[in-house]
Amino acid sequence: MKKRLVGVVMGSDSDWKIMQEAVKVLEDFQITYEVNIISAHRTPQKVQEYALSAEKRGLEVIIAAAGGAAHLAGVIASYTSLPIIGVPMPTALAGGLDSLLSMVQMPSGVPVGCVAVGETGAKNSAILSAQILGIKYPEIRRKVKIFKERIAQENMLKNKKLKEEIKC
Amino acid sequence: MKKRLVGVVMGSDSDWKIMQEAVKVLEDFQITYEVNIISAHRTPQKVQEYALSAEKRGLEVIIAAAGGAAHLAGVIASYTSLPIIGVPMPTALAGGLDSLLSMVQMPSGVPVGCVAVGETGAKNSAILSAQILGIKYPEIRRKVKIFKERIAQENMLKNKKLKEEIKC
Amino acid sequence: MKKRLVGVVMGSDSDWKIMQEAVKVLEDFQITYEVNIISAHRTPQKVQEYALSAEKRGLEVIIAAAGGAAHLAGVIASYTSLPIIGVPMPTALAGGLDSLLSMVQMPSGVPVGCVAVGETGAKNSAILSAQILGIKYPEIRRKVKIFKERIAQENMLKNKKLKEEIKC
Amino acid sequence: MKKRLVGVVMGSDSDWKIMQEAVKVLEDFQITYEVNIISAHRTPQKVQEYALSAEKRGLEVIIAAAGGAAHLAGVIASYTSLPIIGVPMPTALAGGLDSLLSMVQMPSGVPVGCVAVGETGAKNSAILSAQILGIKYPEIRRKVKIFKERIAQENMLKNKKLKEEIKC
Amino acid sequence: MKKRLVGVVMGSDSDWKIMQEAVKVLEDFQITYEVNIISAHRTPQKVQEYALSAEKRGLEVIIAAAGGAAHLAGVIASYTSLPIIGVPMPTALAGGLDSLLSMVQMPSGVPVGCVAVGETGAKNSAILSAQILGIKYPEIRRKVKIFKERIAQENMLKNKKLKEEIKC
Amino acid sequence: MKKRLVGVVMGSDSDWKIMQEAVKVLEDFQITYEVNIISAHRTPQKVQEYALSAEKRGLEVIIAAAGGAAHLAGVIASYTSLPIIGVPMPTALAGGLDSLLSMVQMPSGVPVGCVAVGETGAKNSAILSAQILGIKYPEIRRKVKIFKERIAQENMLKNKKLKEEIKC
Amino acid sequence: MKKRLVGVVMGSDSDWKIMQEAVKVLEDFQITYEVNIISAHRTPQKVQEYALSAEKRGLEVIIAAAGGAAHLAGVIASYTSLPIIGVPMPTALAGGLDSLLSMVQMPSGVPVGCVAVGETGAKNSAILSAQILGIKYPEIRRKVKIFKERIAQENMLKNKKLKEEIKC
Amino acid sequence: MKKRLVGVVMGSDSDWKIMQEAVKVLEDFQITYEVNIISAHRTPQKVQEYALSAEKRGLEVIIAAAGGAAHLAGVIASYTSLPIIGVPMPTALAGGLDSLLSMVQMPSGVPVGCVAVGETGAKNSAILSAQILGIKYPEIRRKVKIFKERIAQENMLKNKKLKEEIKC
Repeated sequence: MKKRLVGVVMGSDSDWKIMQEAVKVLEDFQITYEVNIISAHRTPQKVQEYALSAEKRGLEVIIAAAGGAAHLAGVIASYTSLPIIGVPMPTALAGGLDSLLSMVQMPSGVPVGCVAVGETGAKNSAILSAQILGIKYPEIRRKVKIFKERIAQENMLKNKKLKEEIKC
Repeated sequence: MKKRLVGVVMGSDSDWKIMQEAVKVLEDFQITYEVNIISAHRTPQKVQEYALSAEKRGLEVIIAAAGGAAHLAGVIASYTSLPIIGVPMPTALAGGLDSLLSMVQMPSGVPVGCVAVGETGAKNSAILSAQILGIKYPEIRRKVKIFKERIAQENMLKNKKLKEEIKC
Repeated sequence: MKKRLVGVVMGSDSDWKIMQEAVKVLEDFQITYEVNIISAHRTPQKVQEYALSAEKRGLEVIIAAAGGAAHLAGVIASYTSLPIIGVPMPTALAGGLDSLLSMVQMPSGVPVGCVAVGETGAKNSAILSAQILGIKYPEIRRKVKIFKERIAQENMLKNKKLKEEIKC
Repeated sequence: MKKRLVGVVMGSDSDWKIMQEAVKVLEDFQITYEVNIISAHRTPQKVQEYALSAEKRGLEVIIAAAGGAAHLAGVIASYTSLPIIGVPMPTALAGGLDSLLSMVQMPSGVPVGCVAVGETGAKNSAILSAQILGIKYPEIRRKVKIFKERIAQENMLKNKKLKEEIKC
Repeated sequence: MKKRLVGVVMGSDSDWKIMQEAVKVLEDFQITYEVNIISAHRTPQKVQEYALSAEKRGLEVIIAAAGGAAHLAGVIASYTSLPIIGVPMPTALAGGLDSLLSMVQMPSGVPVGCVAVGETGAKNSAILSAQILGIKYPEIRRKVKIFKERIAQENMLKNKKLKEEIKC
Repeated sequence: MKKRLVGVVMGSDSDWKIMQEAVKVLEDFQITYEVNIISAHRTPQKVQEYALSAEKRGLEVIIAAAGGAAHLAGVIASYTSLPIIGVPMPTALAGGLDSLLSMVQMPSGVPVGCVAVGETGAKNSAILSAQILGIKYPEIRRKVKIFKERIAQENMLKNKKLKEEIKC
Repeated sequence: MKKRLVGVVMGSDSDWKIMQEAVKVLEDFQITYEVNIISAHRTPQKVQEYALSAEKRGLEVIIAAAGGAAHLAGVIASYTSLPIIGVPMPTALAGGLDSLLSMVQMPSGVPVGCVAVGETGAKNSAILSAQILGIKYPEIRRKVKIFKERIAQENMLKNKKLKEEIKC
Repeated sequence: MKKRLVGVVMGSDSDWKIMQEAVKVLEDFQITYEVNIISAHRTPQKVQEYALSAEKRGLEVIIAAAGGAAHLAGVIASYTSLPIIGVPMPTALAGGLDSLLSMVQMPSGVPVGCVAVGETGAKNSAILSAQILGIKYPEIRRKVKIFKERIAQENMLKNKKLKEEIKC
């Protein structure tokens, strides 16, 4: 079995709808990954096992999605030396601002690198993973560059299309 | 050695200045307690041990203070069936509102009962502990009632003093 | 008639839709309860009577739900020595953040232990009640432990299901 | 003894430093007043007595200052038909925004008219009282008009002074 | 023609849907009123005329609704000595918190008494008007008292109904 | 007397300490200006006169500073067709965020262009004025360009200095 | 080809639905314009080219719409001496408050003049452009004045209509 | 000359006081670095050059500190495929929450991984860099592990010290 480079974890299956956007990007970049639902609060021992074994199992980056109190990323960070990317989930209380603050305000010594709230953050967590892996795997860096060129092209195409449509 | 009823934990020794207000109230109520600095992020295993052994060691209520990402209360709650009271620590970013949200927005199944941010919360965490213990220990309930009468008297005295001072 | 251990109160019948989640959990735990709609602002005397008689009637924990200015929990707390759990109701103005702050920022001496805003908070208020009662009633503590095991199992099942579905 | 028209109440003697600004304005307007420290949470019965007797004692407007959970104004409003003006006290958590929301978001049927947070609000609560009393007492209305002219003159004088100073 | 006691003004016809709740309450209390759409920003001279003539035309209280920058209440307050009640309109940006702050944070000397955001605030602005007028017109005060009794009865009825429904 | 191109107005003399930063920049750019303290709430007629005569007196841009309810910029905008730049003043309540929202959320039809809160905003209001005037006066545009080059040079110098200091 | 006076740029084609409100107003005022989708993050070189050539191509004002991190207006401002108007786009996280702060809090030396979030801001960005161009082109200033009269008339008409409808 | 692995950039020399905390940690980990003051708004071309040459010059991670509009991290991210870590600087307006949102809410395709506001974030940006570099350089990973053990020891020592001091 091929080594998985990125671990994608989330606290609840309700996060999957958003986090599959991360998985789609990883597939695009042909980066191997594993996905797990493990809750920092309901299955703390599972989270501990996951984090303590992550490096040995070959993971090099962990993407953790969580909402509200949003402890998952931080708890994993407490048990491993791998880089952790936090994706704050949207909430009814404060749009996800609460999730973001619960993740990003980690104490000195145990960082979590946070990206945007929700789907945009999910996608960007995968791209940031690719950029991190790119420092070690030239093939992945090459793919990040192609991706950046493609989104630039798409943006220019949209501009062209709009200008033709409204003639200005 | 006498059984300790309340466990007071905090993530950093910088929280002690605030949390000693909780301890003073516990002493006032003659409630036995223990104090620990254990960090959810720096010493996760210690937190796990603490929470898993809490009930066996005789603790009946846990007061957990934390700031910023403020995971301590939630992590302890994930490992024990004891009631947990969270005291959000003030922060430079958002006055402690971030700490409060990180604590109070716990997911369904694993509650933390939060009190006010900072010193007021520290004191109130001890009083709430006394109210909780009061359902089992009549002596503690009696002390809560005396305490409530005393703060009412103090308030009325302050009123009397001000009215004399400003003569109206 | 059996003694009721938990009093569930709310300021308006519009809160019932959310607060029945608390009642469902209490029934799950077979904890006796009573439910009342009493408004701190429209029927202050009723609230006073309720709070002053609560202990005598056998209540051991009170769960109070309120939104906006959200005084109900605090007013009850001012009249009784029982532990009060506040459940902030969602609002159009600020998602319930206003309700939370109106409840949690109680002055020194008169605590309200707050849980999350809305349905999650409603459920958690009942679980926290069970944890509090658990210090006195071993049977309730045992049920909390079974409940915690069950939600852990559910979480692991969801993980298994997702992994089978997406094969990773 | 002369009838007191305005009741100034506050929850804590620490609010007096700010609320004496209201009293100074009332004295300026020669409006009779009484001042009381009564806490909605520490002395709820005192607040009830105060509010229930307010009209009989001749009060026509009540100014209530409170901070944090800030229930004082709302609790008084629940017991009387007099107009209540709320002055939110500054807080460390959120500058007083929490106090403001706890006061202003009163439920339908029981209004509190809020003014600005802190000293400005204290002064304005007294001026608003004068404007309210002015609908009944022409002498007070006349004083409000003179006051408005005076602050206009002061503003113009400041303009003149600055323009002379910086010569433009 | 009968003298109008309360002026209800709003900046835009889109506010009418909310502000008719104020008018309904005024009709309930049989308080005479007039309604105007005048914009502080689009028709500043109309606002000035309105405010300068308000007292002469017999108005005794002005209710001003506005959203966003929400200057209407403050501009009127700058031109008259009548008491002004501000009703903040909900907004897409911040739920109406922006409207509230634009209204309530008036500078020293020129108060606006603010009530809750949206429909609740609209209703409460009319009740507060009645409470203010009640200091001069005993008939209106009597109606406020009857109203307060009625909402208390309604609340108790709701409690009775729920308790019958859920049998507890 | 030379025509003044920019009008700098503020509601209170306490704003002058901040707004003199705008004036210093205008002097740097040798742009003629006038300064006035006029309060939207204390001297509304003065503000009206100022705004109605601004264009005739030769003003081409108006910079208005205000805090809290912060109506000054909007009230001026309601009376003139000149471009208005709003400078939100810092506040104790919300750091000036309240001032910003009171200014920037102007209704459709009557814009105020807002810059940053406080001193930075004061400076930038003057630079934005220069950029606006630059579309008509080539000499002023030229000065803006020189200014932009100068701040770039200063930035590079600071970089050089730091790199020498820390040798990296 | 006629010189374009106003450049309207946005980061994404999803902003067009809102920004066409700006274009409609520009057409109303018969102000020439060009529209472009260019992303500060996806096509930074295009943004640089756009900004560096803007003045040469005859643009006199640039309206830049962006959401979230919202760098577009600021990046353009860094490359040109033209006045930049920022229109913050609404966001799911914070209603657009995040976009507003990302735009308005520009550092000293490089201002962006911000208007309201969303459609209102889009319209107002065009009106502010007209006011700015009005200092140079009397014909445009005349149109701004006619526009202001028209919205005043519309407001008065709405008032008349409502008063007829509700007869008061 | 030895290759520099981490680039530390900041927009202003006033950020250096905070960002030297990042540099101290990098030195602790013996990770080579370079430091630059380059402003996204004052020296956009310098930023472009920096970002476009970063990979060629051997940098593998870039730490970018910025405050307020805080575009620096995002602008660099637009020009390079390296992983970017954003450190939000504290601000007077909103404690740095504004800086955080300007950085973290990057659009889909161009991520910035954000850490906490201020000094804690500065330290954590360096630790996160080490964790990222650790996936490629086993020596750096080893140092991260030793560091994590050390902070755990320190935490336990503080606990021991406090317990001795307060004897509980």
